[in-house]
Amino acid sequence: MEESLVEHPLITFTSDFGLSEEWVGVVKGVIYSINPRAVVIDITHDIPPMDIGKGAFVLAAALPHMPVAIHLAVVDPGVGTSRGALVLEVRRGDVLVGPDNGLLLPATRRLGGIRRCFFIDNSAFFRQPVHPTFHGRDVFGPVAAHLSLGIPLEKLGRHADAEGLVEPPWGEAKRGEGALYAQVVDVDRFGTLRLNALPEDLREMGVGKGDLLLVEVAEESFRAPYVNTFGDVERGKPLVFDDSSGFLGVALNGASLANQLGAKPGDVVILYASRFSPGEEARGWQ
Amino acid sequence: MEESLVEHPLITFTSDFGLSEEWVGVVKGVIYSINPRAVVIDITHDIPPMDIGKGAFVLAAALPHMPVAIHLAVVDPGVGTSRGALVLEVRRGDVLVGPDNGLLLPATRRLGGIRRCFFIDNSAFFRQPVHPTFHGRDVFGPVAAHLSLGIPLEKLGRHADAEGLVEPPWGEAKRGEGALYAQVVDVDRFGTLRLNALPEDLREMGVGKGDLLLVEVAEESFRAPYVNTFGDVERGKPLVFDDSSGFLGVALNGASLANQLGAKPGDVVILYASRFSPGEEARGWQ
Amino acid sequence: MEESLVEHPLITFTSDFGLSEEWVGVVKGVIYSINPRAVVIDITHDIPPMDIGKGAFVLAAALPHMPVAIHLAVVDPGVGTSRGALVLEVRRGDVLVGPDNGLLLPATRRLGGIRRCFFIDNSAFFRQPVHPTFHGRDVFGPVAAHLSLGIPLEKLGRHADAEGLVEPPWGEAKRGEGALYAQVVDVDRFGTLRLNALPEDLREMGVGKGDLLLVEVAEESFRAPYVNTFGDVERGKPLVFDDSSGFLGVALNGASLANQLGAKPGDVVILYASRFSPGEEARGWQ
Repeated sequence: MEESLVEHPLITFTSDFGLSEEWVGVVKGVIYSINPRAVVIDITHDIPPMDIGKGAFVLAAALPHMPVAIHLAVVDPGVGTSRGALVLEVRRGDVLVGPDNGLLLPATRRLGGIRRCFFIDNSAFFRQPVHPTFHGRDVFGPVAAHLSLGIPLEKLGRHADAEGLVEPPWGEAKRGEGALYAQVVDVDRFGTLRLNALPEDLREMGVGKGDLLLVEVAEESFRAPYVNTFGDVERGKPLVFDDSSGFLGVALNGASLANQLGAKPGDVVILYASRFSPGEEARGWQ
Repeated sequence: MEESLVEHPLITFTSDFGLSEEWVGVVKGVIYSINPRAVVIDITHDIPPMDIGKGAFVLAAALPHMPVAIHLAVVDPGVGTSRGALVLEVRRGDVLVGPDNGLLLPATRRLGGIRRCFFIDNSAFFRQPVHPTFHGRDVFGPVAAHLSLGIPLEKLGRHADAEGLVEPPWGEAKRGEGALYAQVVDVDRFGTLRLNALPEDLREMGVGKGDLLLVEVAEESFRAPYVNTFGDVERGKPLVFDDSSGFLGVALNGASLANQLGAKPGDVVILYASRFSPGEEARGWQ
Repeated sequence: MEESLVEHPLITFTSDFGLSEEWVGVVKGVIYSINPRAVVIDITHDIPPMDIGKGAFVLAAALPHMPVAIHLAVVDPGVGTSRGALVLEVRRGDVLVGPDNGLLLPATRRLGGIRRCFFIDNSAFFRQPVHPTFHGRDVFGPVAAHLSLGIPLEKLGRHADAEGLVEPPWGEAKRGEGALYAQVVDVDRFGTLRLNALPEDLREMGVGKGDLLLVEVAEESFRAPYVNTFGDVERGKPLVFDDSSGFLGVALNGASLANQLGAKPGDVVILYASRFSPGEEARGWQ
């Protein structure tokens, strides 16, 4: 654990709890009862119920831009079953706490990879009795709070093999011959399609800023330039850009691309470098 | 007031203000201006407008799991009328601040009962001028902030008789001959029906974990086992369980019971110990 | 910068980011990385996307009731274009940070007016690299955090002429012959129409509490008294009152006026002192 983290104990908190019930507040209360000096920053609690894919995306989008911290994440359809509970230290120095269901992994890849990994099974750090449906309150929250006091990770349980962890529901985009095979992993409130693909994926295809792409998504195809930002295309026109998170985004300037296409998380998106595009049959954006 | 509360001043905050206007932020600003060291933890601000019943449930669900604190709660359809304003100290040591409309009472019962109770009428602790529609900002919030500085409760106003307080919109479940007469007081985002009934209500009927119940709700009846958690029944099947809050819940494993039944807060729920059940006409869950 | 602000560094935060993505949390993480002692109070992040008018209203409604603070506000349809970035000091002592698109101006008028004003163009205080679509994270947030450490405003960039700033999308209400020409700038969750008009506008028309007004809005007209609060009229009846923000409101006691009229932000509202009213054809509230 980095010393600065103990001096200024920061815990980020991401969940699918919503804000309409008492759950988020109760977890914060439990953290406070263990370390009243801990500062908790909410990333979001509006992950759709049990949507590990969106949870994993939001964490992977957020954490590279956050200071080194303890990151508590709970999207946990397997609560009360035998799924494992994890604490991971990444190369950047952050510590991630959450269920072993793939939720944490895309973020670890963007933070330099996993340095150490343990299962959480030392009940000395749990809130008792542990309720079978609320490990956020009774397991993950208390463990994050104890970590913020400086307890070493290895006290939490036995060593876990980073290779054997449960995979996330979406992986990295695949590069093919002049094409990038990605998927929509999130749709934001402005209608941008956020992809499981990174700027380096396009770079390695030889695509640079200003180049034209052919985009296939949700049974539509259209040409869109790879540009820096919305203002680089006319109002109503599509663009491919590096989203603020660091992932690639596809959007319309001034309108919701998701609404116009009916696109949603899980949809396949193929980006063709235009010189390899299927050609004349591809229609432009109306 | 407990000394530890003054050293680490924690205020929880529950309201029906929503998060779309400036109201929650303004109350926190006023608290900060009185005690910049106070830590405010939101329980929820998404209580439906003026829904005292849901507010009372969320408080009763949350507070037993929170550390000893000052609990500010504002769901206040009577603001600007002659309804009283209350500060209550409970046996566990917490202090609750809010309107005398039943909102605070179910929570006090789960915190050991009321030790002392005062009306808030000493305007020296108000923000002036007091706006007739925003006592959260001008009365309750400032009073909570002053309490977090250690002012004694008795300075706030005249003594109130705990027996004479306005009753909450829902009471405790009633036990009959082999049956428990409860009501839905909340529906959570996973579709669980949260009841005004406690595990001890079933225990005193002689029902234990693993026993089968006959459940009547919203003109439907079905058999459901009383179990520890969702995973104890097959996917799609109903269960009765101890919700994480400590109240009883009725749910489906992996689906929304509320949606399937059209059940909503206020609906009567009767739990029959199966040996007393009306018998063959009761159909199982399809 | 006021010394007390450096001792207890308070930053309020208003945006159209919503709470479903990682954006609000990331901005707070960046602020924390610059000043871990800063306290951030959210006003709202639920401004509809790019709705400068609502953002400007919420700020103008909230800030007079907040302690002196640094106020970070980001509703920024022009992000990535050449629109200016501003830091303003008002006479009350607060510092406002946000885009030069009118968002900040109505609030400055309620805080005594602008004392000093600078464009933000010293990239030494930015997070690098600055992403073209997320100045909240890379420009405005970091600048607010540095201000909370006590850096002088003039270090942020060149002096700006307060007269030359971009106007807000709504101005002040206009007084005519026995009439006040206003507009709906916000509809709250209780259905109250919140106007760009102030109690002094009615006072200068000679209208006082208890007087009857003729209200025209959304092709309807009705008589409503100017009173202190909801309880001053019968249930279901309309009223004009001083909203808790300090602006004028028009509402129904116990129901949503906005729903009943289909009224929405932007609608013109005319308040006639009754003695000048068009007369008999004006119908009462049904």
